[in-house]
Order: sequence, then structure tokens, then C-alpha cells
Amino acid sequence: MIDISIVTIGDELLIGQVIDTNSAWMAQALNKAGFAVKRRVAVGDSWDDIWKVLDEERACSSVILITGGLGPTADDITKPLLCEYFGGKLVQDIAALKNVEYLFAQIFNRPVTERNVRQADVPDVCTVLQNKGGTAPGMQFEKDGKIFISLPGVPHEMQGLMQDEVIPLLQKRFSPGIIAHRTLLTFGIGESMLADLIEDFENALPKDIKLAYLPNHGMVRLRLTARGTDEAYIQQSLDENFTQLKTAVEAFLVTDKDEPMEAAVRSLLIAQQKTLSTAESCTGGYIAHLLTAMPGASAIFEGSIVSYSNQMKQNLLGVKAETLEKEGAVSEASVNEMLQGLLRATNTNYGIAVSGIMGPDGGNAEKPVGTVWIAVGDKTNQVRKRFHFRFNRQRNIELTAVNALNMLRQFALDAGKKN
Amino acid sequence: MIDISIVTIGDELLIGQVIDTNSAWMAQALNKAGFAVKRRVAVGDSWDDIWKVLDEERACSSVILITGGLGPTADDITKPLLCEYFGGKLVQDIAALKNVEYLFAQIFNRPVTERNVRQADVPDVCTVLQNKGGTAPGMQFEKDGKIFISLPGVPHEMQGLMQDEVIPLLQKRFSPGIIAHRTLLTFGIGESMLADLIEDFENALPKDIKLAYLPNHGMVRLRLTARGTDEAYIQQSLDENFTQLKTAVEAFLVTDKDEPMEAAVRSLLIAQQKTLSTAESCTGGYIAHLLTAMPGASAIFEGSIVSYSNQMKQNLLGVKAETLEKEGAVSEASVNEMLQGLLRATNTNYGIAVSGIMGPDGGNAEKPVGTVWIAVGDKTNQVRKRFHFRFNRQRNIELTAVNALNMLRQFALDAGKKN
Repeated sequence: MIDISIVTIGDELLIGQVIDTNSAWMAQALNKAGFAVKRRVAVGDSWDDIWKVLDEERACSSVILITGGLGPTADDITKPLLCEYFGGKLVQDIAALKNVEYLFAQIFNRPVTERNVRQADVPDVCTVLQNKGGTAPGMQFEKDGKIFISLPGVPHEMQGLMQDEVIPLLQKRFSPGIIAHRTLLTFGIGESMLADLIEDFENALPKDIKLAYLPNHGMVRLRLTARGTDEAYIQQSLDENFTQLKTAVEAFLVTDKDEPMEAAVRSLLIAQQKTLSTAESCTGGYIAHLLTAMPGASAIFEGSIVSYSNQMKQNLLGVKAETLEKEGAVSEASVNEMLQGLLRATNTNYGIAVSGIMGPDGGNAEKPVGTVWIAVGDKTNQVRKRFHFRFNRQRNIELTAVNALNMLRQFALDAGKKN
Repeated sequence: MIDISIVTIGDELLIGQVIDTNSAWMAQALNKAGFAVKRRVAVGDSWDDIWKVLDEERACSSVILITGGLGPTADDITKPLLCEYFGGKLVQDIAALKNVEYLFAQIFNRPVTERNVRQADVPDVCTVLQNKGGTAPGMQFEKDGKIFISLPGVPHEMQGLMQDEVIPLLQKRFSPGIIAHRTLLTFGIGESMLADLIEDFENALPKDIKLAYLPNHGMVRLRLTARGTDEAYIQQSLDENFTQLKTAVEAFLVTDKDEPMEAAVRSLLIAQQKTLSTAESCTGGYIAHLLTAMPGASAIFEGSIVSYSNQMKQNLLGVKAETLEKEGAVSEASVNEMLQGLLRATNTNYGIAVSGIMGPDGGNAEKPVGTVWIAVGDKTNQVRKRFHFRFNRQRNIELTAVNALNMLRQFALDAGKKN
């Protein structure tokens, strides 16, 4: 099995201005194709640092995938550096030039400038990989039996080149192994307690299966991984052990797929042929966004009333002015009226209503920052619960969303059993 | 000026199951404190790979910050490895144990297990950095004059330790330099055209100021960076050059701060004392989420009607059944009625309405995937525009949001000039 290094280039990665999502996407795509990533290294737009990382990575990996630094501007130095590293000179690639001309004429509707034309210059020692989504071509080099592939850093261009060129090329060149995972998601149990709960299972796990704990947002994901060459054996062994693991954590199991909470809610509601809407104050549309970020959301989701102001809580959800004044917007009574108003207004089977104080301001002694009321239910039954999250605004919003979705999931499961 | 390496540990990073947001956060915090990150390396939960990366990074950096692998479960091997690497043995730290006991008694409301107690064991060759947010303490080691600091991978725990311990420690030990940035955001011009537009400026830029182009979501961010020790000189030189840069790109300038489009909209509306609401179909609440993710959003944002289904477009926004049937939900007429209905329902000064086909399904020859209608305006004037985005669902949603916010920004600017 070959080792792969991912090298990302750009000062923006080292000053934290940009989060590196490319590496995660590439690792996932490579994994699916049977290839393992050994290391990921990020360096700045510095000639010496890039040169050094190429030397280092070729000493330990067979394939070095490089992204970034291929733009048309002066801070992009990857192309001249690769040209010197592999001892070539820049020449114009006709196919790449045609691609630049096509993109500007048909997609961007702008004239081609001199600077754009230079995007088609490539080192004469590389194999050009055509980039359908942008002007910077991919470039493949070889040195001492090691393969180097340089890709643009713009995510959709990198993704297109990975799918169309890089992965097929690696699969042709190397016989990929099998890397298989089984992942499940638990809710309501900490990492340590979970580890105690499945200690016997973990101790009895075959040597060729690895167990990983991935805690996030108050949930813990458990992943079994096996690598090898005998696909049938690997899949069967994983299935057997995964079945045991699911039984062991049954009381806390949200989903036995590698998917987020909202996908588990979607599956459940599709099975029940039920619909959902949300009334969101403090989450400001984030729950609706999570649900609609998934393709085919319309099967279960009708919409949301994001009542950020009290005025909207009254006008659109029919929350009483008296309730808001007496109990406050963050109260059991208000969130209850929000839910009732939502179900009246939308006519969906289930509803979620949330109201809270996400911070940094707006808290007081009685209702500190992080106080949240969540109500879920249908027209006949509702459940309400108070939470107190102790984090920053972003994390409080995320935790509120996850807890609201989990409450709805529990409610729908219970409702399903009754019928 | 010292060099810093960030090492992140965990298989989840190499299979792409998790996006590494910790590194970006750490880099930003270090930058603000005057420290530069030279390299970021991610390796898996493998003894040999972790050992090797420690050897490599100490050869090139003065400070090595390590996150991850400190959990209480068997896949967490960072602590025993560091113990062996620095030649120590594990001993119980009383302060760390008290912290574990406090957290379980006061915050988690769960009994302490044997496994939790072991979290307080640390190598006897390290200085313990107390972790107020979790059970795994930070650990500081020294070898050959190089400093190694190991931090937990849970984001809020790592962040607390960085702020309370690591940055003060580095500032005490080293005299940090000054690293200063000026960043602006442009809209409506590609990277190449922008580079041509500011070519003279770029060529005349002093050697100690670096210009970077950061394209994303059809926008380009420009960043000037200077490093040195004379703060007054650096800030003045940056200010002078930044003023020139702003003038050069004036026609495309969204904001002269390092902030996203929605923050520029917020500043403008606060200055105008105007309020905003959104009617979202295809973006499913994402625009509302962007606006409410910012603290103090209530100053300008009232709420949103996320009318994902046609039923909600009719019931809550008053879009006519006839319009939906004749023109379709993705049409100039429908988005216009959505906006009118929104402004009636919410009584805000400005409104945004969007309807489109985000994919992967739902397109046809006349209205392919990526077709979006956006309307913005107030009660007397409205502007409508058709877009065609050619990307995946996630990127189409993001581009729709950014373009809708920019249209609203333009509209509000024009409206402000008229009054």
C-alpha cells in the first residue's frame, strides 16, 4: 500500500485567515478510492519552505499532492518553483490555452488578458492535467519514482481535477488496497463513560480493526476501520464487529451511518412520512439551514419562521405580548406559544421551537448567556426543556441546533411507537 | 523572530472525517500576539509518525505546539509517547486531579470513573498547564532549548489553554515582533483583472510589505502584511499603502476590514438605522444564519420567513397560486411576490427574497440547476436579477447568499444617496 502526502501552500493557512477544507476533501476522496494519506503539511508562500517540504515528503511518501499557489498573481510561486525543482522551462500548452479562452468567452464573459494567457504556461517536464473549472492546469511530475501532482487551491477546481484526473491516474498506476470504515453516532454519553461501556468489546476487537472515538457537539462518533487486500474478508469482519458495537451502545445510538444528526432526523421522518417546520429565535435559521443543506430536504421540511425580534414572534407566531413581557422571550411559556403558533401557521406534522441567549451579551443572573428553551412536538403533544450551554456564540448556536434536532428525533420515535 | 510549528494528531484528520479548524484558530491567535507560524503538520494516531514529526519540527522551529490525542481512550497515544520522548514517567498531578473532580461534580453532574482519574496523570518531566474547560491538562516540555506544548484537541479546551497559558508564556519567554495586516474585500472583479488594475501599486509596494490575493465565493480579498519590530513605523507604512490600495479598487470595494459580506451589510444598516428581513426558499435560512451568527444582529435583523415549500410561499408570504403554477417558484414574478409579502408581513425597511434550484436534482432545460432569482428592495422600490451558478449544492447556496447580500448592500447604498 502506498503512502500519500498532501502539501497545501499559502500564507493564508499560516495566519489562520482561511480554514483548510481542501485537505479533508482530498483525504476523503482518496480514502474512498482505497488510498491512505500519511501526512498533511501546510507551508507559506515561501520559496525555501516549499522546496524543503517537497524534499521531506518525497523521502517518506510515494505520491505528493500539492494544492495552492497557482493563481495568476505575484504571490503565487508554486509554478516557477516546480519548474526549477524538476529542471524544466515554461512553455505554452495549447490545450490549456484553449481552455482559458473557452472559459473567458463562454463562462466568465470577459476578455482574456495577458495575465490569463500566462496561466497556460507549464513546465516542459510535466504532464498537463486539464482543469475544466478554471484557468490553472494541474501538473504531474516524476522524480526518483515518486509522483508529484500540483493542483489549484480553489476548492471546486481541485475537486474536479481530483475526480477526473488524479484518482483514475493513481488507480491505474498502483493497485489500491481496501480501506473500509463503519461509523455510528451516539448522543447523551461522554467519551469516558462510552469507553467503559464498550471496554470488553474493544479488548476483544481483532488486531486488524481499529476503533476511534470522535467527540463533538456533546456527541461521540465511533469509527471502526480496517485496511487490507481481501475485500470480502474485511467487509464481513467489519460487519460482524459493527453489529456487536451497535448492540453495546444501543441506548445512545442516533445513527449507524457516517452522517450528522439532521440526516438521522430526515431518514426517520421519511420513514414516518411526516413533515417538519421550525420556529427559530436564537438559532436564527441555523436549524433550517442544516435541514436544507441536504439534497431532497423538501421531502420532510416545509420551512421556518425565524422570529428574531419580539415583533415577529407576535405577528407571525402569535406569541402574546403579555407572555413576552411577563415571562420574557426566553421562557417555557414563550417557546411553547412559538411552537403552537408554528404548527398553526405551517400545518406540518412536527415542529421545533427555540429561544435562548447565545452571547456574548444579553445574559443576566437569572438567565445567564447560554440559557435556551427548546420545545418540540405535534398538535396534540409537546415537550419542553431548558438548557444551559457554556460556550461562545457559535458553539452555543450549534449545540442548540443539535439538541433541538435530537429532542425532535426522540419525540418522533416515541410518537411512532404509540401509533 | 521565532518560528512556530503546529502539529495536529488524529486519524480523523487523515481520512478527512474532520476539518482541522484548530490550526486556523491557533494561527490567528498567535499572529495577533506577534508570533508567526512556519509550518502546520497533521499526522495520524501512529507512534512512529508522531515521533518523526516531533524530530522534524524541532529541527526547524523554536516552539512546537501539539494538539490532539490526549483523550481518555485507547486511540489516544500522545501522552505516553511524550512521556517516552522526553524520558519521564507518569505521575498523578494533584491540581489536575482536583480539576477533574470539580468538573464532574459541578459541570458534568456525573460520577468520576477510574478512566477520568487517569486523565490527571502526567509525565514527571513536564510543566502542567491547567485546563479549566476539560479533563486533559496541557503539558509543557523542553529539549535542546526548544519548547513543546501539548494541548487537547477539543476546540474550546485548546482555545482556553492558548489564551490563559500558552500565549502569555510565549510572550514572557520571547519578545514577540509586530505582525500587522490590513485586509479589504472586493466584489465583482476577478483575480486577474484585479491584479492588472493594481499592477502599478503592487510594483511600487515597499519590500517589507507583502500583498496577497485571496479569492473565494466570487469575491477577492486583498491583504497587506508587514512584520518587524518598530510598531509605529509598520502601522504608518501599512496605513499609507492601504489608503492607496483602497483608492485603486474603490469601484469594487465592499469593506476595508477583514470581515465577511454580511458584516459590511450590518455596518451599513446600522449607520442608516434601517432593518432587514429575508424570505428564503433555496437558501433555506442560510442568509438569516449568516446575519444572526454575528453578535448584536438584532440591531438590524428582524427575522426570516423560510418558505421552502410552495404552501408556505402562499400561506406566509401571499405568493399567488396562479403565479406559482404559471411562472414556477423560480421566476421573477414569484420572487417579486415573495419580497412584497415579506415586507408586508415583517414591516422591516429592507427585504431580500431568493428562490432557486440548488441541485443536484430539480433542474430542466429552461431552468437548469443553479438558476436563482434574487429580489431586494423596500416598499417603494425593488430590484430583481437572475443568476446561474454552476457548482455543487453547498457552493450554490453560499454564492446565492453572498450575491443577495451584495445586491441589498448596493440597493441600500443607492437608497441612502437619494435621501
